[in-house]
Formats: sequence, structure tokens, C-alpha cells
Amino acid sequence: MEKRVKTTKTTAPEMRYHPLLDRWVILAPDRRGRPTDQKDRYLPRVQECPFCPGRESSTPPALYTVPPPSESGGDGAWRIRVFPNKYPALQPKSADHGNASEKGGAPRELFLSREGVGRHEVIVETPEHREDFPDFEQDHLHDVLTVWAGRIRAAYQEQDLAYALLFRNHRARAGASLSHPHSQLIATPVIPKNIRQKCEASQAYLERNNRCLICDLLKQEGKAGSRVILETEEFIVFAPFASRFPFEIFIAPKTHNPDFTLSSAENMGQLAALLKDMLCRLREILDDPPYNLVVNTAPNAKHLPRELKHQPPERYFHWHIEVLPRLAKAAGFEWGSGFHINAVPPEEAASRLREVN
Amino acid sequence: MEKRVKTTKTTAPEMRYHPLLDRWVILAPDRRGRPTDQKDRYLPRVQECPFCPGRESSTPPALYTVPPPSESGGDGAWRIRVFPNKYPALQPKSADHGNASEKGGAPRELFLSREGVGRHEVIVETPEHREDFPDFEQDHLHDVLTVWAGRIRAAYQEQDLAYALLFRNHRARAGASLSHPHSQLIATPVIPKNIRQKCEASQAYLERNNRCLICDLLKQEGKAGSRVILETEEFIVFAPFASRFPFEIFIAPKTHNPDFTLSSAENMGQLAALLKDMLCRLREILDDPPYNLVVNTAPNAKHLPRELKHQPPERYFHWHIEVLPRLAKAAGFEWGSGFHINAVPPEEAASRLREVN
Repeated sequence: MEKRVKTTKTTAPEMRYHPLLDRWVILAPDRRGRPTDQKDRYLPRVQECPFCPGRESSTPPALYTVPPPSESGGDGAWRIRVFPNKYPALQPKSADHGNASEKGGAPRELFLSREGVGRHEVIVETPEHREDFPDFEQDHLHDVLTVWAGRIRAAYQEQDLAYALLFRNHRARAGASLSHPHSQLIATPVIPKNIRQKCEASQAYLERNNRCLICDLLKQEGKAGSRVILETEEFIVFAPFASRFPFEIFIAPKTHNPDFTLSSAENMGQLAALLKDMLCRLREILDDPPYNLVVNTAPNAKHLPRELKHQPPERYFHWHIEVLPRLAKAAGFEWGSGFHINAVPPEEAASRLREVN
Repeated sequence: MEKRVKTTKTTAPEMRYHPLLDRWVILAPDRRGRPTDQKDRYLPRVQECPFCPGRESSTPPALYTVPPPSESGGDGAWRIRVFPNKYPALQPKSADHGNASEKGGAPRELFLSREGVGRHEVIVETPEHREDFPDFEQDHLHDVLTVWAGRIRAAYQEQDLAYALLFRNHRARAGASLSHPHSQLIATPVIPKNIRQKCEASQAYLERNNRCLICDLLKQEGKAGSRVILETEEFIVFAPFASRFPFEIFIAPKTHNPDFTLSSAENMGQLAALLKDMLCRLREILDDPPYNLVVNTAPNAKHLPRELKHQPPERYFHWHIEVLPRLAKAAGFEWGSGFHINAVPPEEAASRLREVN
């Protein structure tokens, strides 16, 4: 039996710097209180879904809602509902602006800490508990994408945060604690390591070649063809050459665009159709696999560190969506090395995903 | 139902470079054939443990064995048995030495590939299927540590590889496909990203402060005290200030030592006692949790890239063991950002681990 520590008091999240790994960790003790409807012995079990209509009072008040398409539903009915996560990894600014501070007088690098300032939002994507992206009408998915863009914009423009990560965990094995379809936004006061890494690589490529790394990648993948899954006028969907996960999928606009939130309504519509098609295929061939979906958009230009300003970020960043199916478990080798082992060649994954009806 | 692709032909592992993330991915299609005794719908189920005595023929021939302590067992009896992984992530050198090559004439950075050359070994740590580290006699655990050191040395000296990662996955949730106690060594022809990162941070710290980063970290953790779990003459065990995982544990020698394999027999004995004590505590308070254990030792000095040679590596690297309990699942936020969210403050973890009898 796990002897759970009962924490009744509220503890604000804290960010701590890992000097060996050069990345931040978020300590959020209150997240232990969050419930699950999955088999998870480390979280308390919830019996009734807090994301279903009629249980709005079990979550914080909405920040934003999209009404149902027609006059369906009554007063307060919604198609999409956004609210702050009740068990946030990061919280809005307090009076103290949360600059980095040191603990216990040790050398600055060793115990660097800052207030866990940021945003953590939940986007409930449908009132229907059992309806998922592949089942959505295209205009419904288009609405979801528009809400994603709006929440990222709000994190940059209203909350002035450095980065907004929009992601979706599908099924327990991919880390979803509640099964009702939802996505999340976590906006951070620093640019996360992986995004910094992508910025650095793209900036260096631009300096060497005077071209965008992802623009070139899309062109070369299109030319090679063996990893391409779908292609439309504006978008290309492929299994990346160095896929970390089996059936990993990369979606990007073919025309250079740093910022997901600057996509035209027409492009968002095309993306909705593409994403639905893609996720239908994935569900079909892998029996509704667990996955993480991540939107990668440009960081807030106001918060770029000096080393990412050698070139204009809008020239080197190119927004993209990654879908990462979670069929294998990351283990000691992956966590220890940062390597990934993938047993499914992307050429095979692409070929299978192309062939689905 | 997952429609598994039957692959009967053997496909050599391949390494591919991810230009955006600046890390290598290992494609090892044959690993799909590996069996499991866990509930895992993506791997074939094995009924009988291939690691138990009497089934040695179901694995490749041993590279190394440690005999039982006394005359127990008959001919061919062993206490520890090392053999090449039957489903390797990397394989020994072929005639071609596996230098990086390009595919399809695209720009060099985009489709960089190399032969998956390296070692993947399994170290079966006991003939007893149900006996784990906390149950081992101290001299048995000492033997295991000595074998670990020997296998790392062999990877550097005999196979001339750049890095040897020794790790242990405990329980299915931590990625173990077979439950019989075992550890693994994966030795790679390049220094993995995370180790490179640790080298870079430690070298930069040495250049700024003329001291080893980990030496300083250990001293400061010892002084702070709140995260220390155990301390002996030669070792300190603590929950790191920026713990990525709940109940994460860091073990290191207090005297500067870059290389795990250079530990004295006396130190290895002390480490065996400490590790057994530590893992007993973890089992006690968290009901035998899944975890990954990773040995971090200095890279092969012969294969250091130029940027890690500004300072002598033996001055900046300091070997350490990390134990990473897997109580929470990494999800979209973690994979997308590289951030970790941890709901258990290390001070609380350390306090609970200290208090166990």
C-alpha cells in the first residue's frame, strides 16, 4: 500500500534549476490532489467526470467558451470550455514577479529557484464524454484549433509569458488522468529547453544556409516521398526521418510561418480536415493508441535570450505539430542518455498510414 | 486488435540524427520480436522466463559469468550471467566502421545516418526469479557492481566505444519487459546528448570556478541537510534540489572520481551496502515502486569531441548513480518542453526516506 501524504494546505508551485541538465523542473505539490478516472494507484479516484456538462461547478469558472453550433442545449451550453487547471503546474503572477533567487547562500548555479509563475489551462473540447477528435465534425475541430491559437495568444499578449505549450494527452498510457477529451496549455516564464534547442538548431542552420531548417526539411521529405503520409496544398504530414517514437507524425505548413496563431482561417480549416484524417488513420491501424500531441509555435519575441536573437526569430522558427504515439515505454536508457530507441522505421509507419482507407 | 507486421528478416540497427533536437535516434526493427512476461499488447507474450537457470539456450551464449559463492549448484551454475541482448538496440562492428553518411543527396544535416554500431548486453543478476536487490546479500550486490564496472571497461577498452550506459529497469511501468532481475548495458559510438550536456555544464563550471560542479553540489547538499537521505564516509545519497521525478535519488562518492570503474573494492562494498539500504527504504515506503537506475560514468576519453576537451575531462566529470522512480507518466508537456513536473518536493521525499527503519 502506498502511504499517501495528506496535504491539505495549498503550496504554490516553484521552479528549480537543474545545473547539470541545464533545464528547469516544476515542483507542484498540489498536483497530487488531482483525481483520475483511470487505473492509477498514485492518484485519488474520481467517480464522476468533472469535465461533463452539468459539473461545471467542480472546476474553476470558465475563461472562455464556444457555444454549441445551433440553438441546441439550453442556457450555458457549450461546445468547448476553457478554464484554469484546478491543480496547476504553474500559477498566474503574484505581486512578486518571481525572478530567480538563490536558496541558502550556496553558489548561484547550484540552488537556483523562482516562483512557479505561468498559466495552466484546460480546454475541454466537447461536451460528449466519449466523442474524440476522429469523431468530430470538421467545423468542430476547426473551432478547437481556433481556441488553441487564442489561448496561446492570450498567454503571450495578456500574461506576457515567454512560451506557451499547447498539448493533448490521449489515453492513460500517454499521461491522461481524465478520459474526457481535453487539451491543455502550460505557459512558462522561461523558454523550455526543447524549444530553445529547436531555436538554436534552426538559427544556426539559417546562419549557415540562409534558409529555414524546417522549410528545407519539408521540401526534402516531399522529394524523398517514402515518409510522406498526406499532402495538401498548404500542409505536409510525414513520419520524420529520425522518428523517436513508433508512428511519430510531423505536420507543418509548407509556406514559411513562424507562428501557429497567425494561420489564416482557411489554413485552420484545412488543418482541421488533415488532423481528423490523420487521427482516423492512427486509430484504425493501431486500435486507438495512446498519444501526445504537441503544438510547437514561436516563443514570445519579447522574452528571447540574447543568444536566440542573432537572427530574426520569425525567419528561423517554423511552427509544427508533433503527434507522438506512446506504444513503447521510455526506460533507463532513454532517461539516462536522451537517446530514443524506435522499433518501427518511419518508412514503414508512413507506408501503413498511407494505405488506410 | 493491433495488426502486427511480421518481420522475419533480420534488420541491422541504424542510427539517425534529429537535426532539430540535436540528438540521435536508434532504429532497431528487430526489437519488436522481443518477448515480455508483462501485460503489454505491443509485444509477444512469453510463458517461461528465458533468464531462469536451465533456459540458457534461449539466450545468446554468455560473455561472462560469476559462479555461485560456494559449491552450490552443479556444473554451469552461475550467480550472475552476462550475454548479448538477443534483440539488440545496437550491434558490434561489422567490416564497415559505420561512419556517418547521407541519404538521398539531401543537405548533410537533414538526413544523417550511421550504422547502429555498439553493444547491448543483458546482465542477469541472480538465478532467482523473484529475488531482487533489496533481498540480495551484500556480497552478491557487490558482485553485481563489480560486473557493471567490468562491462563498462570492456565497452571502452575492447570495443572502443564512446560511451557505456549501464541501467536497470525495475517493473513494467519503468519499461522492463521481463521481470527476472537484470540490468543492461548499451554502449554507443557517440556520446549521448544527456551525458554531453552534463559534461558541458561541468566543464563550464570548472572554467568559472576552478572546482568540480558535482563536488560542490555534494558539499552544499551535505551542508543544507534537508535533502540528504544517507551518508557514509565515502558516499552521500540525497534527493536532488531540482528532482525531476518524485523520490528521485542521487548517489555519488564524496571524493572526486570521474570513473565508476576506478572505484576501489572497498568503496564498491560500501556502495553495495548503501544501495541495498536505499532500495529497501524505497520498497518500504512506496510499495516496491517501478524505477530506472542509471550509472553515469565518464565518457571514453579517446572519443571526446573537441568542445569537451577545453578542460581535462577527469577534472570535471564525477561519476554518480541516479535512481528515478516512475510514479508519474511523462506526457505531452514533458516530451514537448523538456520540462519535468514533480508533485513531491525532494525535502519531503528525503524526510520520508530518512525516517524508514
